[in-house]
Amino acid sequence: MMVSQGISFEALGIGKGAERDRRKIWRTFAEHYHLYRGTPSRLWVDHALSVVFGIPQRLSVETADDTFDAINEKLLQDDYRPRALYDRFGIEVIATTDGALDDLKWHDEARQSDWSGRVVPTYRPDAVTDPEFEGFAENLIRFGEITGCDTSSWTGYLEAHRTRRKFFLSKGATATDHGHPTALTADLTSSEAETLWRRINSGDATAADAEVFRAQMLTEFARMSCEDGLVMQLHAGSHRNHNDHVFGAYGRDRGFDIPRRTGFVEELRPLLNAVGMDTRLTLVLFTLDESTYARELAPLAGAYPSLRLGPPWWFHDSFEGMRRFREATTETAGFFNTAGFNDDTRALCSIPARHDVARRCDCAYLAELVTTHRLDEDEAFALAPLLANGLARETYKL
Amino acid sequence: MMVSQGISFEALGIGKGAERDRRKIWRTFAEHYHLYRGTPSRLWVDHALSVVFGIPQRLSVETADDTFDAINEKLLQDDYRPRALYDRFGIEVIATTDGALDDLKWHDEARQSDWSGRVVPTYRPDAVTDPEFEGFAENLIRFGEITGCDTSSWTGYLEAHRTRRKFFLSKGATATDHGHPTALTADLTSSEAETLWRRINSGDATAADAEVFRAQMLTEFARMSCEDGLVMQLHAGSHRNHNDHVFGAYGRDRGFDIPRRTGFVEELRPLLNAVGMDTRLTLVLFTLDESTYARELAPLAGAYPSLRLGPPWWFHDSFEGMRRFREATTETAGFFNTAGFNDDTRALCSIPARHDVARRCDCAYLAELVTTHRLDEDEAFALAPLLANGLARETYKL
Amino acid sequence: MMVSQGISFEALGIGKGAERDRRKIWRTFAEHYHLYRGTPSRLWVDHALSVVFGIPQRLSVETADDTFDAINEKLLQDDYRPRALYDRFGIEVIATTDGALDDLKWHDEARQSDWSGRVVPTYRPDAVTDPEFEGFAENLIRFGEITGCDTSSWTGYLEAHRTRRKFFLSKGATATDHGHPTALTADLTSSEAETLWRRINSGDATAADAEVFRAQMLTEFARMSCEDGLVMQLHAGSHRNHNDHVFGAYGRDRGFDIPRRTGFVEELRPLLNAVGMDTRLTLVLFTLDESTYARELAPLAGAYPSLRLGPPWWFHDSFEGMRRFREATTETAGFFNTAGFNDDTRALCSIPARHDVARRCDCAYLAELVTTHRLDEDEAFALAPLLANGLARETYKL
Repeated sequence: MMVSQGISFEALGIGKGAERDRRKIWRTFAEHYHLYRGTPSRLWVDHALSVVFGIPQRLSVETADDTFDAINEKLLQDDYRPRALYDRFGIEVIATTDGALDDLKWHDEARQSDWSGRVVPTYRPDAVTDPEFEGFAENLIRFGEITGCDTSSWTGYLEAHRTRRKFFLSKGATATDHGHPTALTADLTSSEAETLWRRINSGDATAADAEVFRAQMLTEFARMSCEDGLVMQLHAGSHRNHNDHVFGAYGRDRGFDIPRRTGFVEELRPLLNAVGMDTRLTLVLFTLDESTYARELAPLAGAYPSLRLGPPWWFHDSFEGMRRFREATTETAGFFNTAGFNDDTRALCSIPARHDVARRCDCAYLAELVTTHRLDEDEAFALAPLLANGLARETYKL
Repeated sequence: MMVSQGISFEALGIGKGAERDRRKIWRTFAEHYHLYRGTPSRLWVDHALSVVFGIPQRLSVETADDTFDAINEKLLQDDYRPRALYDRFGIEVIATTDGALDDLKWHDEARQSDWSGRVVPTYRPDAVTDPEFEGFAENLIRFGEITGCDTSSWTGYLEAHRTRRKFFLSKGATATDHGHPTALTADLTSSEAETLWRRINSGDATAADAEVFRAQMLTEFARMSCEDGLVMQLHAGSHRNHNDHVFGAYGRDRGFDIPRRTGFVEELRPLLNAVGMDTRLTLVLFTLDESTYARELAPLAGAYPSLRLGPPWWFHDSFEGMRRFREATTETAGFFNTAGFNDDTRALCSIPARHDVARRCDCAYLAELVTTHRLDEDEAFALAPLLANGLARETYKL
Repeated sequence: MMVSQGISFEALGIGKGAERDRRKIWRTFAEHYHLYRGTPSRLWVDHALSVVFGIPQRLSVETADDTFDAINEKLLQDDYRPRALYDRFGIEVIATTDGALDDLKWHDEARQSDWSGRVVPTYRPDAVTDPEFEGFAENLIRFGEITGCDTSSWTGYLEAHRTRRKFFLSKGATATDHGHPTALTADLTSSEAETLWRRINSGDATAADAEVFRAQMLTEFARMSCEDGLVMQLHAGSHRNHNDHVFGAYGRDRGFDIPRRTGFVEELRPLLNAVGMDTRLTLVLFTLDESTYARELAPLAGAYPSLRLGPPWWFHDSFEGMRRFREATTETAGFFNTAGFNDDTRALCSIPARHDVARRCDCAYLAELVTTHRLDEDEAFALAPLLANGLARETYKL
């Protein structure tokens, strides 16, 4: 947001020769806090400052220094340590996403400690399934070493995934996650897949090969989920790193990932023809293209036993986004084909705000149904806790 | 909906070896009635149970048996016979859709009986215009026999349609209906059309030929409508039978028809260039892709004298669907380019509920216009009956 | 609207042999005024009649003649002359759009008169950048003559644009405007561009060449904007002259321009990679495809410093259109990446109504934010004048 208004990345502490004085960076943020008016970021920061840190005044250029000091003071206190906040926030479980090559040692440490919180890993294999990922060739070599599988063959490569999934399961994982540019799936014959894999593995793959390979892997992962019970998540439709200069100078995840039109009907068909009717599979779909809510996603989730709709994602994890989601999906998919609320924040202190927004929006929607006589009041009371966490608990087998 | 939550088709009485005990199937439905919360199906069933059958309590696993008995008891009574319900519901006309090969004998029987209700046929020729329809070749042979036209020639084939349309007109039809995967139209020269028809008729047509042929037939039907006055309806954009297994095991119409992105601007242009300005033509457009309401359909209907927008269709025949339809189309197309409400249910007892929802939603929208000073109150009162049935009566020449 | 309901163009005074009696045409309009119920046109005409002309009664067939007389009487008065209305309406500036070949003599006259109003030109070069524009070849010849540049070379052609832009700047222009069928941009190497230009200039260009050329010119104009400071506007996505008969018989701008699906993410990327991070550039984007608001436009404007979102355009310059715009864009782009309100009417008397609608809709949205505790009341008061005109003043460097 600040970059979009002409503030440099450097002034925000990002890039070579960037500002390193945190107080100064904070002041820059406070000075431009009005830019966030009407955005969910504003709601989250307000909530964190007031509820989590107990700071009474609104952030502004006048209050920037006092607020900075107050936060720093709190952060030195024991009850602002991450585990204390986890308890205070009433969190039941946090799931991290971890690469297929990750040794999950931090998860081991956490579980072996005297702490009772629950942090589980999630299998996110993009770095060894997306031929266009940076370092793909090296990743594959390491993938073979870690698993002891002969990844030069198609069956060996699939076996390596099964091995790693078992490892993740043993560390508490209940789900996998897949971030793809599109929702395309494929269901090749094994000889076609073997041939394609040879091209991928040899580094001779074209962009079209890469797309088909990612598509095929979604179907393979859906089959593995039927076997080992890991819940599958698909996050589709982001054009990553839209600007070459920003990517070159500042790297990934700098606010330049832009949603694009995403189709699910033809795209998911190969996977759904293969295992879509299998009740062992749970596939949770996330989209950045709201035009698919009523047109494609709700009808698909309202038909296939394997499908659930994930909560409004990313840009749509917001007041209006949640309202539109319920209004567009409920009439066709109902509530029970949705996955309940989960947020995907990296900012610990924003968790209470995000869940608060979700609970309020969902309850407002239920209240709207009751006051327009589309739902009885006792049913709204029964649904509210399911939308808040019951459905998430069930969908993710927690 | 129940299948999407893991209930088998067999438990619902569908397929080989399916449950045949209707009471048991009804119990399964009642047990899962909560799945429908927030959906139009829920509203319709609630309305039918309470208003049509006079059952006071909400359907649940506890009330399932009593409700089952109460319904069965009522259905034995004379005033629950279809014609009695027709009168009680205040229905003015029911239009059926009938294949081009149908002899319409049931319509004859109804008209020749002492009953004063009005049931008219509608010409739905998909089985003899869609080369990908099951049994297309046999249908064509029968089409020639029935009409006495030489359907091996393009002009003979068109003449056969004209003949059947006349027959339908003589039985009370006022409209035709066309269900197409897309809204594509074409306007080939007669020699191009003749050549295409020869490939279609010989069974040598490719998928691309089939698409162009369907497209061409829409324009031909629009021309015939100019001549014989039958109102033309286009229902475009459903991907039928999305799942191979469900289609193979349980057949058509099992809840696995999924909407897809649908375009109208380039697609309808050949037809509209041919006869779109002809005031004798009425073409009513239905879509499952709401993103086209404001972007494509309202601007087209707000320009072409031949076009009317059909009411929100299928998944969108709902509270939110109707609201979105009015909000997205009225400002550009106004009210008078919409076709008024008609539902396309096969469930007789849901008719009052559907019209009740439509009347309430449309009146709520009118009230919103009045309270925000966008419409005078006397105008809202003038519009309400038009939206409820006046525009439908006029559009369909009833 | 009236044509869509079967009124002929001729009855509206358009075309050969058309009705010439203005009173009769006005009566036809009054007789069909109910067709406009629920549309913005209705709001504008109502507002103009009551507020601008002081006519108390609603327009109808009964009041048609009296209203006609009352308007004509007012139009003879000095305080209904355009400059008087400009003052009375509180207009600060009007920007016209002018072709690259225009001599801007009317602007000279206005500035040299004793009038203190501000009317500035806007550089709209479509007639010399779109190879499919009527008279393109002749326009190019004239373009070379006016500028004294050798437009047979690519660099000479670009120089001619720079020359004309300087001329427009000297006459008070602050912006350029570009009306394109799509938002496609390109960034060819100079030798590729030179080769393409030679084909374009020789008249040998294909439709694909024309599309790439228009795309390339958008990037060139963005570069020029970095140099000379003219704000760039892109209006993309209209399918002009949808009906051949209407275009042939009645010409352009007869209500048969239909929006089409428009993409911005891949399409704008070449331009944005070239100069999107340059803070000297302001590119204001307008769309007719509302599905891009939340999915594409808000994320782009919320990232790139050069981008601003123009107000809801054309069909969407309406109550519902403005509400949807704010609801779909604010959470991601905020308010400060939008351009404030400007209307693009040709009807002087509708200006107050349009701004009134915009102010009311924006204030209603702000009030909604305040009452749902998403914004503090003092912030809403600070934002209201910015949305009404402050952001427009800043965006367009007025």
